[in-house]
Amino acid sequence: MRMYDLILKKRRGSALSTGEIAYLIGGVTDGSIPDPQISAFLMAVCFQGMTPEETVEFTLAMARSGEMADLSAIKAVKVDKHSTGGVGDKTTLAVAPIVAACGAAVAKMSGKGLGHTGGTVDKLASIPGFKTELLREDFIRIVNETGLCVVGQSGALAPADKKLYALRDVTGTVDSLPLIASSIMSKKLAAGADCILLDVKTGSGAFMKTAEESVELAKAMVAIGEGAGKKTAALITDMDRPLGFAVGNALEVMEAAETLKGNGPGDFYELCITLSAHMLLQAGKGTSYGECRNLAENAVASGAAFHKLCDMVTAQGGDASSLSDYAKLPRAAGVRQVPAPASGYVQAMDTAGWGTASVVLGAGRAKAGDAIDYGAGIMLRKKPGDYVNAGETVAELYTNDEKAFPDAERIALRALTVGAGKPAEKPLIYAKVDADGVEYF
Amino acid sequence: MRMYDLILKKRRGSALSTGEIAYLIGGVTDGSIPDPQISAFLMAVCFQGMTPEETVEFTLAMARSGEMADLSAIKAVKVDKHSTGGVGDKTTLAVAPIVAACGAAVAKMSGKGLGHTGGTVDKLASIPGFKTELLREDFIRIVNETGLCVVGQSGALAPADKKLYALRDVTGTVDSLPLIASSIMSKKLAAGADCILLDVKTGSGAFMKTAEESVELAKAMVAIGEGAGKKTAALITDMDRPLGFAVGNALEVMEAAETLKGNGPGDFYELCITLSAHMLLQAGKGTSYGECRNLAENAVASGAAFHKLCDMVTAQGGDASSLSDYAKLPRAAGVRQVPAPASGYVQAMDTAGWGTASVVLGAGRAKAGDAIDYGAGIMLRKKPGDYVNAGETVAELYTNDEKAFPDAERIALRALTVGAGKPAEKPLIYAKVDADGVEYF
Repeated sequence: MRMYDLILKKRRGSALSTGEIAYLIGGVTDGSIPDPQISAFLMAVCFQGMTPEETVEFTLAMARSGEMADLSAIKAVKVDKHSTGGVGDKTTLAVAPIVAACGAAVAKMSGKGLGHTGGTVDKLASIPGFKTELLREDFIRIVNETGLCVVGQSGALAPADKKLYALRDVTGTVDSLPLIASSIMSKKLAAGADCILLDVKTGSGAFMKTAEESVELAKAMVAIGEGAGKKTAALITDMDRPLGFAVGNALEVMEAAETLKGNGPGDFYELCITLSAHMLLQAGKGTSYGECRNLAENAVASGAAFHKLCDMVTAQGGDASSLSDYAKLPRAAGVRQVPAPASGYVQAMDTAGWGTASVVLGAGRAKAGDAIDYGAGIMLRKKPGDYVNAGETVAELYTNDEKAFPDAERIALRALTVGAGKPAEKPLIYAKVDADGVEYF
Repeated sequence: MRMYDLILKKRRGSALSTGEIAYLIGGVTDGSIPDPQISAFLMAVCFQGMTPEETVEFTLAMARSGEMADLSAIKAVKVDKHSTGGVGDKTTLAVAPIVAACGAAVAKMSGKGLGHTGGTVDKLASIPGFKTELLREDFIRIVNETGLCVVGQSGALAPADKKLYALRDVTGTVDSLPLIASSIMSKKLAAGADCILLDVKTGSGAFMKTAEESVELAKAMVAIGEGAGKKTAALITDMDRPLGFAVGNALEVMEAAETLKGNGPGDFYELCITLSAHMLLQAGKGTSYGECRNLAENAVASGAAFHKLCDMVTAQGGDASSLSDYAKLPRAAGVRQVPAPASGYVQAMDTAGWGTASVVLGAGRAKAGDAIDYGAGIMLRKKPGDYVNAGETVAELYTNDEKAFPDAERIALRALTVGAGKPAEKPLIYAKVDADGVEYF
């Protein structure tokens, strides 16, 4: 077999066979296929796509290119959740404890933040003492004892995807439905859960700008998950505004803790309950969505979910008292109010812009490897649909690097639209995709 | 400017600007753009193409990426000819002397043979003493003194094309009309002639298998040449059978010499006269094709063209007496007859197959750098349309490596179709393409 022939085959629009995909991914993993050939192949995929069967095989081959997490020692049904990335997206911090409080296991590997989107692992790392790297046996033990554990994604997971992603990132081939779907799902399949719920973000802060694109991505990912024998579903959720009010690691930990105490922002609470209910339904913890939703709501109302979060933090070496005594969390020395430039209704908040402002403040990474200021970030005081008077505070900026304020404020204001007339309310959840098809809300 | 953005621009189907092309070709030439990015770009071009203006700029940038031959010291109008490559294609050996005998200058750089197609430089190198590498001043002097000089293509010509071709060769991106056209034309533009005549081969022995494809390639190349301010035309000529009877370096030198003495094969003579006439028309040596054709025919009939060939061979250090006393040319020790497998008409000769057989005998290179047996090759005794009796000799194989006979014979016979009924005669020249459009014959 020659890579040259596989490139030509894809260029002509044919699907690769299982054996050809194995050869390709093997050569990517062991470095025997040169980067220029891989890059040309990726560009051909951007034009010719992949069949559903081909995409499943491609994803499985990438999943198997490295370590496959063996979670068989965990007795409960293991549910995993993946968000395609957003701004203020602290859902895992609330959803994992809710689901675990209802009897499903969450043994989760999460990513770091990059660009304008944050990462769960960074948010958790802002809790004093919290360890995001654990030995495999400790990971399994903590899940068995507390029902949940969240660690950083192992570098040994899906190395073929890592290699392909690095090439896609420089060759203009990121934006291809089968490549995006297989990249995400290869890591999910390697992570070993029984059920996978995908939170596909859509809007100005998301990779997918429209609900239609998001539904297509969700369909591709669900097809892969189901094709690989995993119960898989996806929700298409809004990222046309930041989620909740907090953007930034310690700020988001506080907001997640408050939400589990019943004091969270409405949009964030609603999204967490909905995601949790769907995960519980997948895990067979109830027979209907309504029943699972009740379970999730009760887990918050009873305090059981907050208790689970504290258990996990303690088990992973963190100081759980910081989840109530917020003075123990990192905080930024500098704070600045962002005043509204005019009176009127907040029409829109360009979410990527607000995310970028938070990165400038130190809350995220412009590029992989950058250091993070855990106390930095943004607390929104107004969201789309709110009325604001000229000069009134729209948001507060936090940082330990006060030189960053002017840039961050400029970027934030550019990402804010204030005008007459209350804007129409947008849905929080657009659609659900599962093996039965697409259901629009 | 970032290569990443240029890849995305091409992926979306937009044309690059002149500045963007300069950046791209500059980065290819100096190595600052990584190969994976170049490869992804090339694949995007395969799908999205290039506009005519973009192709001209791309070609000019490649032509200018290295040395541009300065032929201004040559007083006569300089005409160049390029063949897209064939089997038994010794036209330059006859056409250059004919044209020079009629007063146009031929200062030509030619390529080496690769794969099943031969190269003019190898044919000339089979003449004892002949030098294909000359100092620039000797090259110019010989053209001024004799009217013609043919040397090997300088490695310093169009280095960006050399780099791009090496990547195309391994990434399945050879077969793209603007990339093929710009690759050929970048070297022709850098070679510095005033007029360019392209001989676009079509059929089983050519890169382009159909006349339609060849016309498209010719149109693209003519548009580039004219766009760059050179008088450019193309003939679409047959390569569905080997040209003439001789395939192999010294064998082809003999056939070219015989043709200039008036004893050449009909198809080869006709093609040479037609090509020469068009070159003379381009050079303004006559006011009509008919007039120029007369000039060319007279140059052969009078012996002036053969004399020019001898002058050039002498000027380039070769033994011109070998063009009459063929015993002085390299000859192979071994000869074997290929008998016809059946009685009937030769229906077809797969030209690439016969070319490959000649490579197996030692007349060409399977890969760049391979050594050549100048005496090796094939003399056809029958061509399509000829009747043959079973066992009668179809061709003679020549080599100094007699172990090669069985393979060469097997390949040759596989490339031969004998059957009942005389096949329809095919045209030698299909069409002409110039600034005025396409003229079919």
